[in-house]
Amino acid sequence: MTARLRVAMVGYGFMGAAHSQAWRVAPRFFDLPADPEMAVIVGRDAQRLAAAARRFGWQESATDWHSVVERDDIDIVDICSTGDTHAEIAIAALAAGKHVMCEKPLANTVEEAERMAAAAHRAAAQGVFAMVGFSYRRVPAISLAAQLVADGKVGEIRQTRAVYLQDWLTDPAAPATWRSDKALAGSGALGDIAAHIVDAVQFVTGQSVTEVAGTLRTFVTERPSASDPATRMPVTVDDAVAFVATLDGGALATFEASRVAAGRKNALRFEISGDRGALAFDLESLNELQFFDATAAREQQGFTRILVTEPQHPYMAAWWPPGHLLGYEHTFSNQVRDFITDISENRQPQPSFADGLGVQRVLDAVERSGAARSGWTSVETG
Amino acid sequence: MTARLRVAMVGYGFMGAAHSQAWRVAPRFFDLPADPEMAVIVGRDAQRLAAAARRFGWQESATDWHSVVERDDIDIVDICSTGDTHAEIAIAALAAGKHVMCEKPLANTVEEAERMAAAAHRAAAQGVFAMVGFSYRRVPAISLAAQLVADGKVGEIRQTRAVYLQDWLTDPAAPATWRSDKALAGSGALGDIAAHIVDAVQFVTGQSVTEVAGTLRTFVTERPSASDPATRMPVTVDDAVAFVATLDGGALATFEASRVAAGRKNALRFEISGDRGALAFDLESLNELQFFDATAAREQQGFTRILVTEPQHPYMAAWWPPGHLLGYEHTFSNQVRDFITDISENRQPQPSFADGLGVQRVLDAVERSGAARSGWTSVETG
Amino acid sequence: MTARLRVAMVGYGFMGAAHSQAWRVAPRFFDLPADPEMAVIVGRDAQRLAAAARRFGWQESATDWHSVVERDDIDIVDICSTGDTHAEIAIAALAAGKHVMCEKPLANTVEEAERMAAAAHRAAAQGVFAMVGFSYRRVPAISLAAQLVADGKVGEIRQTRAVYLQDWLTDPAAPATWRSDKALAGSGALGDIAAHIVDAVQFVTGQSVTEVAGTLRTFVTERPSASDPATRMPVTVDDAVAFVATLDGGALATFEASRVAAGRKNALRFEISGDRGALAFDLESLNELQFFDATAAREQQGFTRILVTEPQHPYMAAWWPPGHLLGYEHTFSNQVRDFITDISENRQPQPSFADGLGVQRVLDAVERSGAARSGWTSVETG
Amino acid sequence: MTARLRVAMVGYGFMGAAHSQAWRVAPRFFDLPADPEMAVIVGRDAQRLAAAARRFGWQESATDWHSVVERDDIDIVDICSTGDTHAEIAIAALAAGKHVMCEKPLANTVEEAERMAAAAHRAAAQGVFAMVGFSYRRVPAISLAAQLVADGKVGEIRQTRAVYLQDWLTDPAAPATWRSDKALAGSGALGDIAAHIVDAVQFVTGQSVTEVAGTLRTFVTERPSASDPATRMPVTVDDAVAFVATLDGGALATFEASRVAAGRKNALRFEISGDRGALAFDLESLNELQFFDATAAREQQGFTRILVTEPQHPYMAAWWPPGHLLGYEHTFSNQVRDFITDISENRQPQPSFADGLGVQRVLDAVERSGAARSGWTSVETG
Repeated sequence: MTARLRVAMVGYGFMGAAHSQAWRVAPRFFDLPADPEMAVIVGRDAQRLAAAARRFGWQESATDWHSVVERDDIDIVDICSTGDTHAEIAIAALAAGKHVMCEKPLANTVEEAERMAAAAHRAAAQGVFAMVGFSYRRVPAISLAAQLVADGKVGEIRQTRAVYLQDWLTDPAAPATWRSDKALAGSGALGDIAAHIVDAVQFVTGQSVTEVAGTLRTFVTERPSASDPATRMPVTVDDAVAFVATLDGGALATFEASRVAAGRKNALRFEISGDRGALAFDLESLNELQFFDATAAREQQGFTRILVTEPQHPYMAAWWPPGHLLGYEHTFSNQVRDFITDISENRQPQPSFADGLGVQRVLDAVERSGAARSGWTSVETG
Repeated sequence: MTARLRVAMVGYGFMGAAHSQAWRVAPRFFDLPADPEMAVIVGRDAQRLAAAARRFGWQESATDWHSVVERDDIDIVDICSTGDTHAEIAIAALAAGKHVMCEKPLANTVEEAERMAAAAHRAAAQGVFAMVGFSYRRVPAISLAAQLVADGKVGEIRQTRAVYLQDWLTDPAAPATWRSDKALAGSGALGDIAAHIVDAVQFVTGQSVTEVAGTLRTFVTERPSASDPATRMPVTVDDAVAFVATLDGGALATFEASRVAAGRKNALRFEISGDRGALAFDLESLNELQFFDATAAREQQGFTRILVTEPQHPYMAAWWPPGHLLGYEHTFSNQVRDFITDISENRQPQPSFADGLGVQRVLDAVERSGAARSGWTSVETG
Repeated sequence: MTARLRVAMVGYGFMGAAHSQAWRVAPRFFDLPADPEMAVIVGRDAQRLAAAARRFGWQESATDWHSVVERDDIDIVDICSTGDTHAEIAIAALAAGKHVMCEKPLANTVEEAERMAAAAHRAAAQGVFAMVGFSYRRVPAISLAAQLVADGKVGEIRQTRAVYLQDWLTDPAAPATWRSDKALAGSGALGDIAAHIVDAVQFVTGQSVTEVAGTLRTFVTERPSASDPATRMPVTVDDAVAFVATLDGGALATFEASRVAAGRKNALRFEISGDRGALAFDLESLNELQFFDATAAREQQGFTRILVTEPQHPYMAAWWPPGHLLGYEHTFSNQVRDFITDISENRQPQPSFADGLGVQRVLDAVERSGAARSGWTSVETG
Repeated sequence: MTARLRVAMVGYGFMGAAHSQAWRVAPRFFDLPADPEMAVIVGRDAQRLAAAARRFGWQESATDWHSVVERDDIDIVDICSTGDTHAEIAIAALAAGKHVMCEKPLANTVEEAERMAAAAHRAAAQGVFAMVGFSYRRVPAISLAAQLVADGKVGEIRQTRAVYLQDWLTDPAAPATWRSDKALAGSGALGDIAAHIVDAVQFVTGQSVTEVAGTLRTFVTERPSASDPATRMPVTVDDAVAFVATLDGGALATFEASRVAAGRKNALRFEISGDRGALAFDLESLNELQFFDATAAREQQGFTRILVTEPQHPYMAAWWPPGHLLGYEHTFSNQVRDFITDISENRQPQPSFADGLGVQRVLDAVERSGAARSGWTSVETG
């Protein structure tokens, strides 16, 4: 008989919806060593919470996360609330012996992230594990990219370039939200979406960013309040960020993230090139990976568009026949599959809080570089 | 309090998995007037059925569809079994006052489809409805295409061309299955996938095929038995089919379907052109629609790649933010949303069994044309 | 010292411009065994002809082609005039011992084409050669496609599909020209552009069309006169044509050509698939060939976009470095290179008049099939 | 009677071939106010020069550029030799009253470029003009991009990103050439190809780079000598360069150039986004421009692939019908057209030596920034 793992999820926004779908769907497609059970959803607003519980299919709702993370009948705490709450909840949950899945970015500050990583390190010694939700690692095409690099198909990596372009803040009339407030969000494009490309490049290359030189920009410096459009609110975070970086293997990396890139909706793109080949990916075509094999016969060389839907591809045997595409939300189901499998087998899931801290430190170095006229700035190490 | 509609699903193969996912997921994203409840899954093999019930999340399983469709506590019968069983089950379910969703193709023969359409016509008079599952109508990009045509953006349609290309039978060593046996499958690429492009073109254009001239081919005439590879089984269905057609508005249409098109995994593609514009679609990029506006400023004309993920697009307000892609299975959830909404509001869901019969008659005319040296052959009408 | 071959060109329209560019440019890039010299341009309207001679760079102009083809100082006659004039000029030129390059389609009727092929056959015995100008064979990507097929990279061919889509007649107000008059043009999309895809498929596959079943359509049945827009002229040729065909190796082929396909400017596209791979090409991206290798490692399979600009690719060593694209007109320079090389080395250039006759017979069979309700119709053979 | 302008060209390598083709072809397609005449080709190696004269079609050859630029029968001096020779030749030619076209980069140092710009400024006062050959401005799609920006279709520009990626130095065994020697080439990817994207972005946006922060990398630090493969030669220039920049309108710009980007052959790409739209271009698809109109109806928004081959598009009325592509070399013919037209009408051709100097100063600022740990560095102004 399959074990049950009862989940409490904190938060009920966009990420809450995505995670709920994953907890619901993953056991229907994957053979999991344990069955996740959608036990409790936690939030502050009791009325909206109750609606979310019904909509998303949670057994109960609760407004006090402290008591929930202490409950004996909870095995997993899934943190989908705003970044400023991550540290306190995660540390408490780990202390209470619960496995933790925490949305990215790990925290709003390096200091918080360090405390979280330390807590996770202690918990792991007790067989209690924490993972940060860089869900794009579970896009099959990105996972395949990492495999191809690991198999040497790209050779020694010389350059990576990654952008994450969105356009939902292009219009100056788009309202201010918590995401434009540094106190709540920590940063703008940097923490929200540059974090994803930093993790993706580090994941796919298997290398770490050691130093950065960068700049942040805010093009629209105030926006109408969402609740009262006549009131103008200052924008205290970046609209866009760009930086160059060095990977520990010596490669030159470039990164750019923007929420004002007209026409680009969710364009997380990267290109990775080495002395034997190259890879290219675009999240707006998430089922595809482009691969260039510099060792192929010269007259047949070119970028191959791999439709990453074959049973030989990561995660795909569980889903549909070749050519039947996955969507955005499947990455979360794949993530649940990996998380449940790893904790059931007493193994640290990836990416760990230490990995999340590593990303945080890169973001921090970018901010420091920007503040210091963009000169090269080392990424702190543990 | 929301009404409940209890569903019995017949079949547990690929389509059973897709439909189960839709029944489970649709109520989590759409505000439905009634809640579908996954009550009974029906099949012949009790052991495999029980596993499917667990995996897919049905409350009960049953091996006798006759008794299930008679049960008072069942409101909807969802037919996902092989084509040769559709007519009998659907007619019985409608007679028992159950709403019916039936996978395509509606039936293996025109005669069966006619009986089904007649039964559906009678049932509708009692407020009991039947629908055939051409799920691709619910791809948001295809639905948008139909809207643009209806809005006159393409003008008077002159030409359509549609292909549906797969490659899973390219290798002569791929084994024989029920799909290569005319007795069970009715036909090969014709009924399996050409049916989809006939429906798609008729749906998007709002026009009907009136006559066809076509040909069918079988390139691999025998295949190893799946159970005993040393035994060769004759292939009694087509590997590929191609035909020209006339739409009732006068357009010239071409259709081609193949299961031996190396490298094409699920390439349902169409192009529709008129005197004011054109559209192009490819299911391998299912979130995109290409639109050419011949009335735009000449120097800015070109095909626009619309990423069909905006809240203004069909079905999309229920899903994720712009740029967050849908996958194959979402079409089934969208289909459940439309079906539940229509039957709850006492309205005929689309496509009806009459529409399914119409597609069947086109396929039949193609077979007759092929048998008669490909001359123009009229599609029968009621 | 390099020999000189003096050229007389008949015609000074679009094709005259393209051929002039080729005669001028080819010797600047290729090492030719003989130097073509742009001696005489021939046409009916003396004034426009003189302007064309200056513009295109011909030494002399002449209005009487009969006397020109007899001149001792002319070695090559290049025929770019309308299709109804090809037979008479070509036969006279060959009889006078001149090598002939003749634009496609070879003639307006099979009977003319047969006489031309017979004349070419006789001349070849004297070392005088004739070639028909299916210039797209000299697109490097198409030439590479033919090589890959010949090398077995596609395997046994099962299917080909080819379209040639243009849109310059989409607007019903586009004026009537000689191209809409059957007496002058022979046919519409059929002879003008379907001829190209028939030749391309036969060239790339190395196979011949043996039978066809097709249909022709005219959507705009009268158009304003170009000279007097108040006058309506009947359109006596087809706007579009579609047909299925069988290749002599057994493959199923489909063809479609249109001059009313809104948004498609010069979309000569083909896909060729066999049991080992597939190819795809689009003239709107003429420097690219897509190649699918079904024998590659499964997880790395996909269509490879070969940018056909490497020195290893056909014709490319003579042009620019990798990644520097060729344009439309380069195919004519490549054609001149092959023609001059072949006749200098006493070898029949390709495609021969017999090949041109073969295409003509396919077009003729399509017209006969269309006239006979689209039933299968054999292509005549010599 | 059309005036004649006699041209002397210095250099006979890759650029000499491209310029020769342009001088030959431009008068055949454009109605020019004066006819360029290919008079003298100049170089150091008499034997190779004579072969080039024959191959490229120049009337004479000469080994002493000093005497040629003094000749009364020469009107234009076209400089295609290595960068270290530009200043001396251009200044002498302008002093002798000859119009000058000079290949990019204008010079190897800012100091040289300043002297050249000063000489050009003095000459212009006498009606003698100088132009630097950033030929990509004459790619019709890039010219159209500049028009769309000027017409306000992109709105206020917030971001630009440009890369120029090639891969011919990917293999460490690729030999050393003058291009890997700082003394001759000035720099590597920076001056060779980053120069192009700096000019393209400044041209399309109509804005100037005011400050940069960047880094240069050399991945392969020594290469075999071309003449003696056993000898290793140090590589004294950059393989790749990346920098962020500010445009004078406030936009954030990123630039990256590489000659080791496996699989990218000639990928000059840029994206420009503002508050009303966006543009995207890739030289590997040089006949296409992508345009996003943020003011279009929301459900029809997307990037439009404009095939820039309509007579309404820049330069295209002179060439072929819609859909018939141009290639790399056409940009040089378009450039000759503009140059001849401007100097004939006593107007400064664009880009001027001052523009070339401006690009040089940007490159210089990048080098200085790189040397100073990548901090923000101002671009010098006159």
